[in-house]
Amino acid sequence: MTVEPAQREVLSRIQPLGSEAVGISCALFRTLAEPVACDIDYPPFDRSVMDGFAVRSDDVREAPVTLRVVGQIPAGQMATQCLGVGEAMQINTGAAIPPGADAVARVEITESVDGGRSVRITESVPLGKFITQRGAHARAGDVALKAETLITASEVAVAATAGAAELNVYRRPRVAHLATGDELVDVAATPVGAQIRNSNQHALADLIRTSHADPVSLGTVGDDRDALRAKIEEGLGYDVFCITGGISMGAFDFVPEVLEQCGVSFHVRKMSIKPGRPTIFGTTDRGTLVFALPGNPVSAFVGFEVLVKPALSGLCGRSHIPPPIKAILDGELAATTNRRSYFPVSVRVDDDGAIVAKPLSWGGSGDPVGMAGADGFATRAADSPSAVDGDRVDVLLFGQRS
Amino acid sequence: MTVEPAQREVLSRIQPLGSEAVGISCALFRTLAEPVACDIDYPPFDRSVMDGFAVRSDDVREAPVTLRVVGQIPAGQMATQCLGVGEAMQINTGAAIPPGADAVARVEITESVDGGRSVRITESVPLGKFITQRGAHARAGDVALKAETLITASEVAVAATAGAAELNVYRRPRVAHLATGDELVDVAATPVGAQIRNSNQHALADLIRTSHADPVSLGTVGDDRDALRAKIEEGLGYDVFCITGGISMGAFDFVPEVLEQCGVSFHVRKMSIKPGRPTIFGTTDRGTLVFALPGNPVSAFVGFEVLVKPALSGLCGRSHIPPPIKAILDGELAATTNRRSYFPVSVRVDDDGAIVAKPLSWGGSGDPVGMAGADGFATRAADSPSAVDGDRVDVLLFGQRS
Repeated sequence: MTVEPAQREVLSRIQPLGSEAVGISCALFRTLAEPVACDIDYPPFDRSVMDGFAVRSDDVREAPVTLRVVGQIPAGQMATQCLGVGEAMQINTGAAIPPGADAVARVEITESVDGGRSVRITESVPLGKFITQRGAHARAGDVALKAETLITASEVAVAATAGAAELNVYRRPRVAHLATGDELVDVAATPVGAQIRNSNQHALADLIRTSHADPVSLGTVGDDRDALRAKIEEGLGYDVFCITGGISMGAFDFVPEVLEQCGVSFHVRKMSIKPGRPTIFGTTDRGTLVFALPGNPVSAFVGFEVLVKPALSGLCGRSHIPPPIKAILDGELAATTNRRSYFPVSVRVDDDGAIVAKPLSWGGSGDPVGMAGADGFATRAADSPSAVDGDRVDVLLFGQRS
Repeated sequence: MTVEPAQREVLSRIQPLGSEAVGISCALFRTLAEPVACDIDYPPFDRSVMDGFAVRSDDVREAPVTLRVVGQIPAGQMATQCLGVGEAMQINTGAAIPPGADAVARVEITESVDGGRSVRITESVPLGKFITQRGAHARAGDVALKAETLITASEVAVAATAGAAELNVYRRPRVAHLATGDELVDVAATPVGAQIRNSNQHALADLIRTSHADPVSLGTVGDDRDALRAKIEEGLGYDVFCITGGISMGAFDFVPEVLEQCGVSFHVRKMSIKPGRPTIFGTTDRGTLVFALPGNPVSAFVGFEVLVKPALSGLCGRSHIPPPIKAILDGELAATTNRRSYFPVSVRVDDDGAIVAKPLSWGGSGDPVGMAGADGFATRAADSPSAVDGDRVDVLLFGQRS
């Protein structure tokens, strides 16, 4: 199965999670489950855009002209009197325009006269100048943020303005992950004999966090059917369950068999990608999404980016899979086989603003060390010729660095 | 002062923060204060890349040939015997090559014979095929991750492989932030008269979090010198202090004066940018970085992106300011004045992989509602003509969405 149908298999089986209310201080990188509407007009009053003097535009038509200063309006206060003919009031940026005034003369075109009792306006000011009308940016009831919006700092500014002290957002997906293999030892241990460290446990947890979901590590299980079955049953209690290793053609690769015994139905089994071919996607009756990823660290990364990440967005109502970006290749990529291929690349913006992808010197799917500095995968269709310096290639960004 | 000299003023005054050890599970988005070296070779033993049979390449030179199966090597275990002439051992991906074997015949070119007691190898296999030599990806002592690397999931995989259960990383910057202005009320309150909600407090906190630093809100202070001074003195106790509002030309704009009374020396005062001109950068004797940003929400955003964000990276040893990317404009941008200008844009990747920037319908620097969906600022030099549909424009990405 190629990538696009596999992604459709995943997205077609996703129901957005339930929602919950969170305070605006805890809303970063959550996804709105319902729109946010403005409760009042914004700005809530006619407002000065500049520091200067509120005036009647008729009075300053024949500038220069001198007006009597009858008060000062600081931000936060309403004027207590109406501006009469021949009068001006000192006003600050953001302050409310007094009744009677219809323009603001910015401070740069004013001169204090008679110890501040009057002000000389040196240029005429048209009607409405430097005034933002009440409701100019939004009206009470306007939708300020649509449902399914990912909340970043930009949207937090909007929500705060709209009075949304609490936001109704999708629950964060809870993602259990389990590494399998008798060869795995903890990071803190020194491998002996044929052992290696369990890097997938930590990399997967941080891939899940970067996708704005909550990882729950179920640790490591050896190549033992009963122990594996117990751990899988635990994992199936979460929204999503990721298991790495044990899905290849080896004599001890019984993860698929035990998953099926636990009631997982497979919808994707083997993908036409390199690395990552053995990747499996399945579901349970109660709707748990199950991803069995290869044990090779880079293969697991590819499987995560291609299937798991879109699933985690989809669980929060964001089911659009962004297309890869085009980048300029700084280096070479080998011709591909009959499978779509993924190559770890570092990505930079050059001084001309172009996006440049540099292939990492990488020893293949079993080489986690070569992932240092990887910002994404260059991806090339099956049966592509080799790519050389300066070619434009597709890049899937991990989207992790700021 | 234009942007580049202002950024140099900031970066030239930055000392990286101290470092601390964190467990690998807590290292996401921290920055390494020292390199991570591999403690052992990786892989730590000669390893099979495929499921199949470990063989002697001499034995299969004249394939097809039938070999005696003398054992099975699961991942995690070393063979207990040497492979002799005419023998094969079943081996799984990731398992250790037994002594005597020098190639792996993948399972697809093998056939079980005599109930598994022998195996027929249908193709010849060259010396070394499907074996990753011990140390092929990294040698003990090799630097796997350089100092000053931002840790993402890619680097976590590397660190785990290198045995770095703890990592020495820079302390996260602690950033106090304070909003000033008598007009500000809490998000949960309904503004009356000339009041508006304090959106900067929440937006700044999340900009700081997105920059991998820890915000500490000092709340809001009115336009009162004594109260302001007390809050500023509190703010100067942090690594970085951001204050919004009160820096324009209004009668109540005494933030700069009080900052100076509190011992802040200014190095940037007014920038040739729009919006955001009044932005101030200063330092105290004890090294606190002080940023006074305009109260207008979009101006504060610009000041943050232009000066504060590079400072927060610099405090963690990452002092490279990435250049803007080039994007294709979907819409129009007005001609600029004699200042570099910033326009909020949403950014998408189109089906051709091109990056497209769409200007938001935005009411100017006082319009936070127009920031909904902003992924960055299109930025244009002073005295630029208007830009139209299809033009290539520079975009500073906030880098927040995945």
